[in-house]
Amino acid sequence: MGEITKKDIFNAGLALRREVLGDEYVDRVFALKDEFNGAVQDYVTTHAWGATWARRGDDGELTLPKKTRSIMNLAMLAAINRPHELEIHLRGAINNGVTKKEMLEIFLHVATYAGAPAMIDGIRIARRVWAEYDGNP
Amino acid sequence: MGEITKKDIFNAGLALRREVLGDEYVDRVFALKDEFNGAVQDYVTTHAWGATWARRGDDGELTLPKKTRSIMNLAMLAAINRPHELEIHLRGAINNGVTKKEMLEIFLHVATYAGAPAMIDGIRIARRVWAEYDGNP
Amino acid sequence: MGEITKKDIFNAGLALRREVLGDEYVDRVFALKDEFNGAVQDYVTTHAWGATWARRGDDGELTLPKKTRSIMNLAMLAAINRPHELEIHLRGAINNGVTKKEMLEIFLHVATYAGAPAMIDGIRIARRVWAEYDGNP
Amino acid sequence: MGEITKKDIFNAGLALRREVLGDEYVDRVFALKDEFNGAVQDYVTTHAWGATWARRGDDGELTLPKKTRSIMNLAMLAAINRPHELEIHLRGAINNGVTKKEMLEIFLHVATYAGAPAMIDGIRIARRVWAEYDGNP
Amino acid sequence: MGEITKKDIFNAGLALRREVLGDEYVDRVFALKDEFNGAVQDYVTTHAWGATWARRGDDGELTLPKKTRSIMNLAMLAAINRPHELEIHLRGAINNGVTKKEMLEIFLHVATYAGAPAMIDGIRIARRVWAEYDGNP
Amino acid sequence: MGEITKKDIFNAGLALRREVLGDEYVDRVFALKDEFNGAVQDYVTTHAWGATWARRGDDGELTLPKKTRSIMNLAMLAAINRPHELEIHLRGAINNGVTKKEMLEIFLHVATYAGAPAMIDGIRIARRVWAEYDGNP
Repeated sequence: MGEITKKDIFNAGLALRREVLGDEYVDRVFALKDEFNGAVQDYVTTHAWGATWARRGDDGELTLPKKTRSIMNLAMLAAINRPHELEIHLRGAINNGVTKKEMLEIFLHVATYAGAPAMIDGIRIARRVWAEYDGNP
Repeated sequence: MGEITKKDIFNAGLALRREVLGDEYVDRVFALKDEFNGAVQDYVTTHAWGATWARRGDDGELTLPKKTRSIMNLAMLAAINRPHELEIHLRGAINNGVTKKEMLEIFLHVATYAGAPAMIDGIRIARRVWAEYDGNP
Repeated sequence: MGEITKKDIFNAGLALRREVLGDEYVDRVFALKDEFNGAVQDYVTTHAWGATWARRGDDGELTLPKKTRSIMNLAMLAAINRPHELEIHLRGAINNGVTKKEMLEIFLHVATYAGAPAMIDGIRIARRVWAEYDGNP
Repeated sequence: MGEITKKDIFNAGLALRREVLGDEYVDRVFALKDEFNGAVQDYVTTHAWGATWARRGDDGELTLPKKTRSIMNLAMLAAINRPHELEIHLRGAINNGVTKKEMLEIFLHVATYAGAPAMIDGIRIARRVWAEYDGNP
Repeated sequence: MGEITKKDIFNAGLALRREVLGDEYVDRVFALKDEFNGAVQDYVTTHAWGATWARRGDDGELTLPKKTRSIMNLAMLAAINRPHELEIHLRGAINNGVTKKEMLEIFLHVATYAGAPAMIDGIRIARRVWAEYDGNP
Repeated sequence: MGEITKKDIFNAGLALRREVLGDEYVDRVFALKDEFNGAVQDYVTTHAWGATWARRGDDGELTLPKKTRSIMNLAMLAAINRPHELEIHLRGAINNGVTKKEMLEIFLHVATYAGAPAMIDGIRIARRVWAEYDGNP
């Protein structure tokens, strides 16, 4: 009962972020101490993860399956050309159950709408990420 | 038996395009006769729809559900700022079972990764498309 | 005393949004009732305006002058090609004290870094906005 | 003899601009009198047209054929999504000898590298421009 | 006589790709064996190279000179910010007869329409590619 | 008295460029001798720095404070995804008095309009640049 607090949104965002990107990654990014990182992590956790990934409907369920959000991120981040963020979300997508086969299909689809270079750049990063998981570059 | 022909790819692409965008739309775009349109429709049907939407695995099934491709297109086309194409694929998304509620969640998600203006531009078009379906702007 | 609530962030965002874009505009966008708009306005007011425009430092002052944020928005929205949002923020920029002369300089600067078409598209919209203010297209 | 003046660059740019876009267009854009247009036209004529289109080698010849620059502009402006500028440069391309057939091939090529929506948006504008020239939409 | 097969398009695309990018490069990209690469190379060779670069008119000639396609690619890939692909197509452009002098003019032209950073990023890569050809960084 | 010469614009641009980016950087980029660099430096100094940064009003003052141009560049270059140029202009921004605190606020603002990945990529580069200045990564 009572108002939703900023801390509630942050915490909901943090929980989702940990589920998707893993504790090791999240602990590592929070461990960095400089004059930027506190505000950046607060923004990302509250206003990105808390405001979208962690949204729940009246039934208490997530408004979109995590896997659906991962699929959108692979397509969008390849299309808008953000390789660092794409790499992070490729790992998240694996955690959310996106298969290697599905990733291939996602990036082929990206080629049609955002051009072949967007696919090729995406596949290059996917290859690198999968190499850690299965020793199969 | 026999080679896959270009016509096979075109026909598979055409069938998918009709399923997703509707016969009325597809008939209308093919009816336009000028020196550009033949090659453009051939390209789009073969090398876009045939090459991605219509892909089937060894089991004969589509490699990705149509709804998944629609969701990616709403996110990507909003993010890369292609309003004409987004409008067409919003109609396709409705045909593929994306609900109004899901569209809202998709565009909110886009805001996080591609900025609030991408969401707002996307919602504006979604509103226009839904107005035709339910008289509810 | 006590936790910052989501309502606090929303209200701070709303107050800034009213200062910058004017009551008439804000009342108008909130008046639109459909299945998208509630969540969209909540997101924009809380997670855009509340999370950035309304940020205050330990001294209680805004962390950046409103005029500085307007100047960045004119440059960015012209560069990333978001004409609808640019038009809204051109009005906001006038309210925040950006002069016609400064706008000219901002868009010339955009040409250097994002290309002449970004400048020309920006100037075209600026002209339309100023026409309402001074009858001078 | 003596230094190249700013006026020289402006004049060389203006001459090229007139050759490519036609006197009617150029006269029209210069005729607009407001607080933006003087500086904008000066910038565009000097620092865009004068600095690139009008460049001449030691032999006094243009460093690139005008048709080559037109072809690049059609591809680039479609790819980076600047429809107003693309429309202007489609007219310029016709003046520089780019045929309707070549435009089709240019936009098909754009689809491969920047996605099918970039092609479709480009073709839509090309169709409108050609309609004025040959009454053949 | 008979239908055009997918293999025909693939083969025509492959022949062009070898002409432009060289056997060494093409052999190398096909040699990579993983779960992505087969489909990616098939897509790129058929639906990119086969669908555009290898297009031939009724006269059997390529619909655009290879050099023209290279010029468009340098301009477009610099403008849309795809450095990996740009590097590959800079090598292709050299094979297609684009001179160092022409490349300079192409990237200067890009600056005008897509901003100075697009030119500078393009020139940096061009410098690296030419260093391999003439030992002149 | 007399015409403004190209050399005047170049020199005014060069003086500003030295003020903002420092003599060491400017000397270094001019020292590079190859077939691209002369024309590129001439273009950048004349048609970028001379045409915008060095503009002065009738009162002889710069038409925009250098700090304002730096702020726009950080926002724009992060938003349009030009990391090399952003790094250079982060150094320039420090010279122009943009504080670390202000940079944080600028990039948070960018997140709202161009997406969180644009902020995160910008902050990563800012961190690297500041590390040289204060040994505080």
